[in-house]
Amino acid sequence: MSERIANEFYKSKVMSADEAAQFVNNGDKVGMSGFTGAGYPKAMPTAIANKAKAAHERGDEFAIDVFTGASTAPDCDGVLAEADAIRYRAPYQSDPVMRKKINGAEMKYQDIHLSHMGLQVEQGFFGDFQVAIIEAVRINEEGNIIPSSAVGNNVEYLNAADKIIIEVNEWQSLDLEGMHDIYSVPKLPNRTPIPINRPGDRIGTPFIPVDQNKVVAVVKTDAPDRNAPFKPIDDTSKKIAGHFLDLLEGEVKAGRLKYDQYIMQSGVGNVPNAVMAGLLDSKFENIQAYTEVIQDGMLDLIDAGKMTVASATSFALSPDYAEKMNAEAKRYRDHIILRPQQISNHPEVVRRTGLIASNGMIEADIYGNVNSTNVSGSRIMNGIGGSGDFTRNAYLSSFISPSIAKDGAISAIVPFASHIDHTEHDAMVIITEHGYADLRGLAPRDRVKKMIAIAHPDYRPLLEEYYERATAEGHYMQTPHDLKTAFDFHINLAEKGSMKGDA
Amino acid sequence: MSERIANEFYKSKVMSADEAAQFVNNGDKVGMSGFTGAGYPKAMPTAIANKAKAAHERGDEFAIDVFTGASTAPDCDGVLAEADAIRYRAPYQSDPVMRKKINGAEMKYQDIHLSHMGLQVEQGFFGDFQVAIIEAVRINEEGNIIPSSAVGNNVEYLNAADKIIIEVNEWQSLDLEGMHDIYSVPKLPNRTPIPINRPGDRIGTPFIPVDQNKVVAVVKTDAPDRNAPFKPIDDTSKKIAGHFLDLLEGEVKAGRLKYDQYIMQSGVGNVPNAVMAGLLDSKFENIQAYTEVIQDGMLDLIDAGKMTVASATSFALSPDYAEKMNAEAKRYRDHIILRPQQISNHPEVVRRTGLIASNGMIEADIYGNVNSTNVSGSRIMNGIGGSGDFTRNAYLSSFISPSIAKDGAISAIVPFASHIDHTEHDAMVIITEHGYADLRGLAPRDRVKKMIAIAHPDYRPLLEEYYERATAEGHYMQTPHDLKTAFDFHINLAEKGSMKGDA
Repeated sequence: MSERIANEFYKSKVMSADEAAQFVNNGDKVGMSGFTGAGYPKAMPTAIANKAKAAHERGDEFAIDVFTGASTAPDCDGVLAEADAIRYRAPYQSDPVMRKKINGAEMKYQDIHLSHMGLQVEQGFFGDFQVAIIEAVRINEEGNIIPSSAVGNNVEYLNAADKIIIEVNEWQSLDLEGMHDIYSVPKLPNRTPIPINRPGDRIGTPFIPVDQNKVVAVVKTDAPDRNAPFKPIDDTSKKIAGHFLDLLEGEVKAGRLKYDQYIMQSGVGNVPNAVMAGLLDSKFENIQAYTEVIQDGMLDLIDAGKMTVASATSFALSPDYAEKMNAEAKRYRDHIILRPQQISNHPEVVRRTGLIASNGMIEADIYGNVNSTNVSGSRIMNGIGGSGDFTRNAYLSSFISPSIAKDGAISAIVPFASHIDHTEHDAMVIITEHGYADLRGLAPRDRVKKMIAIAHPDYRPLLEEYYERATAEGHYMQTPHDLKTAFDFHINLAEKGSMKGDA
Repeated sequence: MSERIANEFYKSKVMSADEAAQFVNNGDKVGMSGFTGAGYPKAMPTAIANKAKAAHERGDEFAIDVFTGASTAPDCDGVLAEADAIRYRAPYQSDPVMRKKINGAEMKYQDIHLSHMGLQVEQGFFGDFQVAIIEAVRINEEGNIIPSSAVGNNVEYLNAADKIIIEVNEWQSLDLEGMHDIYSVPKLPNRTPIPINRPGDRIGTPFIPVDQNKVVAVVKTDAPDRNAPFKPIDDTSKKIAGHFLDLLEGEVKAGRLKYDQYIMQSGVGNVPNAVMAGLLDSKFENIQAYTEVIQDGMLDLIDAGKMTVASATSFALSPDYAEKMNAEAKRYRDHIILRPQQISNHPEVVRRTGLIASNGMIEADIYGNVNSTNVSGSRIMNGIGGSGDFTRNAYLSSFISPSIAKDGAISAIVPFASHIDHTEHDAMVIITEHGYADLRGLAPRDRVKKMIAIAHPDYRPLLEEYYERATAEGHYMQTPHDLKTAFDFHINLAEKGSMKGDA
């Protein structure tokens, strides 16, 4: 049986999280492991939060800059935000407490493409990091790290940091060893091609090399990943998933896709789960995933022999499925590869695979510009995540959303997107429960009818009225707009509680 | 001496453009050579326009869909637009007559990333093409094409088309043979890495293979490329160029760039010419370009021994420099490589090179969202071109513009960009004659001061007033906006003739 800390030097560095918090100081840049609620440090965030609270009680300043893979969990982002311990956060978050602090101007947040974060750190745009805090399954004999349920930007942060703190989490299965594939592109000016041709190609090592001289603490933990519970699939999700599967079937019919050639990329959520349930009963075989996160539905597809391989950077599993993974990681590691997010989301490899992308959105406008991040232009939800990395470089890109939210007060199809994360040049297909709008090969005005057709029926007349105003005599006609009323939907929502403008 | 048409079969297909126009019919999808006024067919467009006019006079319909590399010239896009011979145009244009027809709803235009156009044709999104019309320097003994001053999407269109018409242009220097490097990524599901590590790497053939059975006509021409005349560098351009060079020097000072490691990407225009003039007297050496077009300034840098190699897909030279190129192509081809635009603009290679991107813009908002295409949200100027390909994947990306246009009636810095082609996640640095706003590592609110500082002084108070409204009590603070007045600049311009709102 493997020892969790197999290296003598590291054994000498074992201490409590509270003791290790001495190495984290006000103003530090701290790179952490963690991606979508998996693989984040479980003990250090609370210890740092406590240190911050004590400092604030003394009247001292204490706030750090926190960089991760992507979102983490209440016991990481949540406790740090609650303690006002963060000054600047990147590249993604989804914590309710943190979101409130950001939207209330109590902390700052930069929303960065997930494939860019580690790259920009390597390029020196953020200067030195003072600390890296990385969760591991195990430290091997040579002192290298076996990462846990997420790889994220671990490699880049370990390289950038002056001091390294490792959390060894006994909750994580030792059988995850062998699932990871750690590879770094050589630094400028010596970058070379990433030799991945298929999602299943392994090109690196199963561990992350660590500069032992920088390790200041090893903290033992035994705590589960966030593991959001699985929501039952509702009717709207089932319908959206059905339209997505129709889109796939359409590609097959058009001779552009074969039943054994579907490469999946998928955001997390209810609709993707419905899609994967649908795929179980479909004609698609040998499905491969080149994506960010491993979801429940992918394990089902693997178990059913429908999916041969899934490449990602982390897990986003429900409690039951996390348990199954911990019990059967040895079997799953024949089918699953966890990579650094620079590689899982790399434009080079994404484009090469020819994947079909599907990501959630907040709203899209009548020309196919997509808002993934800021409600009514200002209020951050989560962030762009990897949606840009995949959308821009996919063989075929799609965005999915129910046509309405908040009992119909909000329409997902609007005259002018109040924030734009994916432009009309990138989004190919938009899907709601009312169908899919295939915008490929269409000039802007030809997209409008298709977009209005997938809006909720209550909003179609309002969108048609807008388009009439936009195309009135004397207007320019490449992308017709009426800028005076372009944001009326959003202004109505703020003032009257509904985009419809109901009192 | 090489023969222009060295293959017997092709000799038998020589005919006039008017005769060859028989192969182009109403409703056809036609792929043409041509990129930035170089390498476009010189005779066929007029012949097709005449055929269209004759049909229209008879009361018959005649309009085709035209796909090119990028923009062409009055004797291509101009004559076709004038004759109402185009129904749909992609992926880029810059012709005044065509622009008017598009904005007047007399033809349709889809503005597509230049690296996506050929790819989407290969992927079958546009179905079969009926005709490809490609300009060549020469047809060799085996019947393969030596392209002329642009490669563009020639390969993809030749493959997609049922019928091929070749224009052999005697004006183009025979010494261009050997300058081209033709390479195609294998088709899905067999795509492989593009083996270019440095801008100067050659990986393909100097000719384009052609399926002889599809060739229906060869047309001889002797006509110059468009070759827009060189504008003298004005003061504003010099200042903007100076700030760009300061940005480069800043990278050197920060230890992120060495004087012999600058990889240039540059849009076309007055400011880039000023930048290149500035580089002649700078400490930068061994400059390499991985870009779309070869401009006058690059030839100067090559002649001065400052630039070792420039990779692009076409020329955009002034008449004097085009003459020099025609006379000395043999010498220049040691330093210049012309590639298919899928390769010159490929995200994979762009990211690998670590280039520094610099592209023009129409406007940017206070958070760094950039409009490259639609004036006041609706009126197309040219198109996104390759700016997205380079910006998203550059080591460092920048956008340049004078701070005002039309004698101050238009500000390049606005509260909310009226069309967004590059999002806040992509644009790193914005430059006007008032300085550069380095937005790297900054959350949205921290970008505002920097953006207002590079606006024209007349507009700074107006932008500050907007930001005050945007950050008023009760607003969400990630990306503060006041949607009711977000487009006031643009509405003022339309109604009062100035974004300032002057009467």
